Amino acid sequence: MTDSVESRLAAAGHQLPTLGAPIAAYVPTVLAGDMLYISGQVCQADGAIIKGRLGEDMDVAAGMAAAQSCGLFLIAQMKAALGDLARVKRIVKLGAFINSTADFTQQPQVANGTSELMILAFGDAGRHARSAVGVPTLPLGAAVEVDAIVEVHR
Amino acid sequence: MTDSVESRLAAAGHQLPTLGAPIAAYVPTVLAGDMLYISGQVCQADGAIIKGRLGEDMDVAAGMAAAQSCGLFLIAQMKAALGDLARVKRIVKLGAFINSTADFTQQPQVANGTSELMILAFGDAGRHARSAVGVPTLPLGAAVEVDAIVEVHR
Amino acid sequence: MTDSVESRLAAAGHQLPTLGAPIAAYVPTVLAGDMLYISGQVCQADGAIIKGRLGEDMDVAAGMAAAQSCGLFLIAQMKAALGDLARVKRIVKLGAFINSTADFTQQPQVANGTSELMILAFGDAGRHARSAVGVPTLPLGAAVEVDAIVEVHR
Repeated sequence: MTDSVESRLAAAGHQLPTLGAPIAAYVPTVLAGDMLYISGQVCQADGAIIKGRLGEDMDVAAGMAAAQSCGLFLIAQMKAALGDLARVKRIVKLGAFINSTADFTQQPQVANGTSELMILAFGDAGRHARSAVGVPTLPLGAAVEVDAIVEVHR
Repeated sequence: MTDSVESRLAAAGHQLPTLGAPIAAYVPTVLAGDMLYISGQVCQADGAIIKGRLGEDMDVAAGMAAAQSCGLFLIAQMKAALGDLARVKRIVKLGAFINSTADFTQQPQVANGTSELMILAFGDAGRHARSAVGVPTLPLGAAVEVDAIVEVHR
Repeated sequence: MTDSVESRLAAAGHQLPTLGAPIAAYVPTVLAGDMLYISGQVCQADGAIIKGRLGEDMDVAAGMAAAQSCGLFLIAQMKAALGDLARVKRIVKLGAFINSTADFTQQPQVANGTSELMILAFGDAGRHARSAVGVPTLPLGAAVEVDAIVEVHR
């Protein structure tokens, strides 16, 4: 196998999703210097948004799975932008927004769905800074949205 | 005309707003290397905050207009920081926060009010990465707040 | 005294907190080039999360104190990552998330608790860009979470 990131993902049962067009007037990634900025990726499975709100109709395990799907889309965006995932030098920062009721406070556990995927895929280069906050609603009713900043090899 | 960005905006009926002082203990922009970080700009018209909440007392069209005003303030901040808008190399990332009820899910459409203005003003250099999320409330009751990261020519 | 930042803080009665491990699968800081990205720091005092929601069970003064504790943790993370706070060149950007009811709109005043501490500690180098938004809930019930981007001397 030529791409160790994808082979690690495949060994864990993950496959990179097919990317659609952004749902609005922006682009999925911008490379500025050696930093790749990735637009917020909403959770999706089988081509449909994973809808839900933590503390209401989605439990932590389902939230983590939703967050994991955001991570797969982030990695798919890296591949689309860079051509080769070996160009990823470091996952620098994730911004995780968790659709939450006012009394749900386990955003860190949910966001771990994305974070643990990054470490699985990239090893130490996947260890990132992060913020995780609750929000009352997300685009299209999505349960989780995560954006990212990635340092790349030129 | 010496500034093509402002002439494009003027041709579309837009005028850059006059900037006031930040409402708190921070500065509107910081230039670090060739990246300009712009503080969150709340929507304003005629010197007053545009108040409202999507899904409650403001519809998508009004939300887009509010978001557009955030964009005009972002561009005015770029001009104040850089002197000449020709120094804008790329709009890299927008972070859009939309004052929303829990059942409003069209944050992308609202945020397009800012995004489309950036493309109008800067063309391909205005195409940016973006996150757009709902929030339950914003400073001074504003409907929309948008911050930005901009790559500049030194 | 060898560290003027810490001596300024001490003169104002502040002491840098002891850092615990992150509560999830991420790291507290990532240095990419000359930019240090710091994970969201939740407010803490005496080793416990400061819980609360502005507009409900916490007033602006208590919110500012909570935000100030986030600032102390941000500075402690800078010291842990850089070894010497004299390597801080500029506080570039703060992202402040304030646990708020839907009718609380004084997020800027609350976030000033962090911002004013940065100016106290670093002087003009502490003057930063910022966004401050309301959120309905935060990890572990925290009242305030703030992340940061800091430019460093190599």
